[in-house]
Amino acid sequence: MNEIASPANDTFSADWRNFASTHRLKTANVLADSLEVKWDDGRISHYHFLWLRDNCPCRECVHPGTREQMFEVVDAPDDLVAASVSLGAMGALDVHWSDGHRSAYEPGWLRSHAYDETSRSERAERLRSVRPWESNLKIPTFDYASVMSADRGLLDWLLAARDVGLTMLTGMPATDEAIELVARRISFIRESNFGVTFEVRTKVEAVDSNAYTSLPLPAHTDLPTRELQPGLQFLHCLINDATGGESTFVDGFAIAAALRADSPEDFRLLCEHPVEFWNKSPQSDYRSFASVIGLDARGEVSEIRLANWLRAPFNLPAAEMGAFYRAYRHFCALTRDSRFIVSRRLEAGEMWCFDNRRTMHARKAFDQASGKRFLRGCYMDRDELLSRILVLQRSYPEATLA
Amino acid sequence: MNEIASPANDTFSADWRNFASTHRLKTANVLADSLEVKWDDGRISHYHFLWLRDNCPCRECVHPGTREQMFEVVDAPDDLVAASVSLGAMGALDVHWSDGHRSAYEPGWLRSHAYDETSRSERAERLRSVRPWESNLKIPTFDYASVMSADRGLLDWLLAARDVGLTMLTGMPATDEAIELVARRISFIRESNFGVTFEVRTKVEAVDSNAYTSLPLPAHTDLPTRELQPGLQFLHCLINDATGGESTFVDGFAIAAALRADSPEDFRLLCEHPVEFWNKSPQSDYRSFASVIGLDARGEVSEIRLANWLRAPFNLPAAEMGAFYRAYRHFCALTRDSRFIVSRRLEAGEMWCFDNRRTMHARKAFDQASGKRFLRGCYMDRDELLSRILVLQRSYPEATLA
Repeated sequence: MNEIASPANDTFSADWRNFASTHRLKTANVLADSLEVKWDDGRISHYHFLWLRDNCPCRECVHPGTREQMFEVVDAPDDLVAASVSLGAMGALDVHWSDGHRSAYEPGWLRSHAYDETSRSERAERLRSVRPWESNLKIPTFDYASVMSADRGLLDWLLAARDVGLTMLTGMPATDEAIELVARRISFIRESNFGVTFEVRTKVEAVDSNAYTSLPLPAHTDLPTRELQPGLQFLHCLINDATGGESTFVDGFAIAAALRADSPEDFRLLCEHPVEFWNKSPQSDYRSFASVIGLDARGEVSEIRLANWLRAPFNLPAAEMGAFYRAYRHFCALTRDSRFIVSRRLEAGEMWCFDNRRTMHARKAFDQASGKRFLRGCYMDRDELLSRILVLQRSYPEATLA
Repeated sequence: MNEIASPANDTFSADWRNFASTHRLKTANVLADSLEVKWDDGRISHYHFLWLRDNCPCRECVHPGTREQMFEVVDAPDDLVAASVSLGAMGALDVHWSDGHRSAYEPGWLRSHAYDETSRSERAERLRSVRPWESNLKIPTFDYASVMSADRGLLDWLLAARDVGLTMLTGMPATDEAIELVARRISFIRESNFGVTFEVRTKVEAVDSNAYTSLPLPAHTDLPTRELQPGLQFLHCLINDATGGESTFVDGFAIAAALRADSPEDFRLLCEHPVEFWNKSPQSDYRSFASVIGLDARGEVSEIRLANWLRAPFNLPAAEMGAFYRAYRHFCALTRDSRFIVSRRLEAGEMWCFDNRRTMHARKAFDQASGKRFLRGCYMDRDELLSRILVLQRSYPEATLA
């Protein structure tokens, strides 16, 4: 690590994105354990020596093919300091380290990754994209052909799936393959014990799930018995000649927000007490242990987990059982409140695509004798949706939900 | 809900397991909001009215085919109480509810799901099965043929995978299909952007991952950039004629325990501060946000998440950056400590199967010119492992790790 890295075109290689130089560095001063940088708009950012050394983008530290780090920060000397610092070519920050290594940081990258409080807040704000909805939602609807043929059409659909969590595709061919073709525009499908894709068709002797009966199903998320519930659910209608069986949806995030406002104590109980969900079947025995309302590391609601018929008996301290039932029944009652419910019959050639960890879906009972009803479904993880959006946004950085 | 459920053989249907009646009910008394039950060993369990009503196993409340609940507890009257209670046929607890519904609970089921503090502790204790290890581990090794041909052989292997987190299979055919055949003895494979199965073979121009170079890789978990890291990793060696490239493993749970003992502050920082991991590729842009050491709802270490070369720049408050680097470097240093390292060269016909969220693996650099080296790998979620174990244990309830 004592060779001197050549600057200029060896730098800036630790990412596949480009970081526009929106601001110039004005000054950089060496403090006891960090650099203090002043920007041309007056912002001050501190960069710890180890943070900078860790993120050196030179070809010795980062593999030029994979753009992944080869250097391990555990190998930096304990007494590492910046021996000198200067503003170099293209406005870069050049650092000469006490162990002889040299690093150069492009200002666009440095600004984009600054961790002063203002920069951190700006980034957190940009991640907020959830749009809550109630019964008056105009369901974002997209045309199959435009999603299949154009990346921009695909991106528009995916942004709605991410931010609204409920979308419809129209103009789908009524073929078994169509759902896979459109899902694979995003990424691979998440397999489950029900297959890569699954049929929703009534079985005479259902043993795997109430979903395969003609019973009504209360508002729920699918596969809450898994550690990670599937992110997206796709449901493609090939035939719907039966009477009844409308799909209904509620925004679980909107319901969680209403619960939080009406009854913070009920909200807290559903966030803090994990519940067990058990799949019960001759062939499988899946069990999860997680709260009905999931919060992310920032304290925002990021997940709803609920299917009434898959809960295990609550296993809580006896002193909390009554309060927990009050909270649970309160949440269930809100999922039945017409204020929140969007209801729509799915016709042949249409497909739902919704966020299965947010948008709870229900099914009204249907009359098996009245006609055929055949849906095909599949799942995909949020990771795949979000990755595809980020890759598409490299080409359409200005795209946002209309 | 006013019909009277017929008792006896209509009860006990809400599960696919049987619950042996290890204890008899002695008395049951109606309190203000619950029943107080005394068992023949003196234990006292309280059952809240709503809990009991929620778990009524009669055919009106539970679908006899799927054994899943049809009743929704949100439909119970707010003022529901037990009008009377008695000990009935086969020692069951019979409850006559104030709204006219009747329920009967089998004592084995009732004892198994009791939520008094003693019963809760007993169940939590039975879930503790992790066996930490250091460099002197005798790697649990199983024969391919016995795993393929016998359910008991399969179960023994899976218990070791769950509790030790590092196992080897020997006697595998050196075919492309063998890894899929043995994985599907457990369940379906978890696909990733690298495919259903992936080849570990050096690429001349790797852009997807450092894993496809001949570089050494520091101890890591695979796919830390995904919200849920794969639970099991399988690595099957078809050819290994190259010099070097030994596999090395450390028990991330043992390292976390050592860190907790040596430096609770470093342990706390790695538990509490989420880190971003970014996959960087022309085709994908996966990002996760989670801590290096993950705790479950019970406060036990349940996951390690770390690949040095996939970390995003740390995004923490400036005041914590120095301390966080101390903690991170401490953890990385422990992964290099010979006290923890198990090292073994994988030969043709052998396969690793390890817990990718616990057992960190590393690869020494290898000499591409010295010979061929070809591995095939795949992933599976913990859900599939644990479900298969529970289903097999219905046939072998006494089986534990030797």
